[in-house]
Amino acid sequence: MLNASPDIRQQFNERPQLHPKSGRRHTPISAVLLTNADVDHIAGLLTLRERQPFTLFATRRVLDVLAGNPVFEVLNNEFVTRTAFSLEQPFEPCDQRGESLGISLHAFSVPGKVALFLEDDSAGDNFGTVEEDTVGLALTDTSSGRSFYYMPGCAGLPDSLRERIRGAELLFMDGTTWVNEEMSQAGVGEKTSQRMGHMAIADPGGTLEACRDLDIAQKVFIHINNTNPVLLEDSPERGQANAAGWTVAHDGMELEL
Amino acid sequence: MLNASPDIRQQFNERPQLHPKSGRRHTPISAVLLTNADVDHIAGLLTLRERQPFTLFATRRVLDVLAGNPVFEVLNNEFVTRTAFSLEQPFEPCDQRGESLGISLHAFSVPGKVALFLEDDSAGDNFGTVEEDTVGLALTDTSSGRSFYYMPGCAGLPDSLRERIRGAELLFMDGTTWVNEEMSQAGVGEKTSQRMGHMAIADPGGTLEACRDLDIAQKVFIHINNTNPVLLEDSPERGQANAAGWTVAHDGMELEL
Repeated sequence: MLNASPDIRQQFNERPQLHPKSGRRHTPISAVLLTNADVDHIAGLLTLRERQPFTLFATRRVLDVLAGNPVFEVLNNEFVTRTAFSLEQPFEPCDQRGESLGISLHAFSVPGKVALFLEDDSAGDNFGTVEEDTVGLALTDTSSGRSFYYMPGCAGLPDSLRERIRGAELLFMDGTTWVNEEMSQAGVGEKTSQRMGHMAIADPGGTLEACRDLDIAQKVFIHINNTNPVLLEDSPERGQANAAGWTVAHDGMELEL
Repeated sequence: MLNASPDIRQQFNERPQLHPKSGRRHTPISAVLLTNADVDHIAGLLTLRERQPFTLFATRRVLDVLAGNPVFEVLNNEFVTRTAFSLEQPFEPCDQRGESLGISLHAFSVPGKVALFLEDDSAGDNFGTVEEDTVGLALTDTSSGRSFYYMPGCAGLPDSLRERIRGAELLFMDGTTWVNEEMSQAGVGEKTSQRMGHMAIADPGGTLEACRDLDIAQKVFIHINNTNPVLLEDSPERGQANAAGWTVAHDGMELEL
């Protein structure tokens, strides 16, 4: 619901790139990929336009979570196709009209956690987490062959995962917290970063250390909690991240490969 | 996730009213009342703070919809109490500590529709809608006795409902569309306003006409679709609404009773 004042209307008319390309409610979204079923990954689906055609890709596990919540039926199946992808099986996603999106996708399991609202306290330390709960993605442009990694949730970088991303052109990486105890130190919660399914940036064995010698050309922190001092442009932590070759994502950021 | 630039931080520090009142994650929300289970009424629950204590009031029907969607378990029952209210039975809601909120609430059924994602095509013209699907509220300040009506979704104003709100001090009213065929006329959809569970403002028998002689002191349109020309401050429709004694809600609006 947009309260369109004349000023906003004028701004809209002066910026033709804001206009829909086809029809009055066109958006450029032709596919959505989910890497996790937690609320910060799936709630946005409820704010997409009601009759927005797109393909929704996720693991079977994550699609089952959506299927278990009738509220996601607002994604009318006349317009939205839900398609499961398998781990370690690259595929080329198409839009709703069957046209290739020009990218190849390769999903792989990363250390993570089952969605908060599905945690099973009786299941022990991992709360019932299974392999398909949290995935990372490698996305490759099928024309140029250029690729990047996208891992917004990642609770650890075992050697196998470090070898996978070694030499990458670009990595978008979970930057939730600076240190593991950040929430309690800030007095805003009890959970550690690990407990929430994330690895901390600066702890021993954390992201800075784990990615130090991997020859990744561009490293960008995403999924950053509002307790994380790396968000502040003038913080020592931002300086430390920058010195280690990391940048911090921001609204409107554009990157080229 | 807030990208707090130094500018934003400075602005925050200069405006003490933005600071939480108790603890670092306090918000002034102590209760939430739902009048409907549609996505535009319930999806916001998913963006509230994870450990925000509040009481969630709704009809049993609407609470059952939430219960049927595990994603709403993010509203941790250690912090959030779900309480059903009954139609036509005024009550005084309390916060989580049992303290009165200083208001009395009276819920009543209004013509409406079951949530889109629960529509039952086999149930005939009303898609399985029941009485508790859409409610209006009368809220009364228990000290002053001043009160207002809140009806963000309303598909019609039968005489019984018109008599209820006659002489009200303040009415917040469903202003979704200007005319019933607005979505198709704008080329953005097929559904009429009635089909979506809303009455149109300016049609014969619409809101302007139905509220004309009810002696309501302040009448405010809320829940306005982005197709509705009443949103534009310089539109003839806005002029027509104003001339009939209506104002259009906007962000930051403050009203006094």
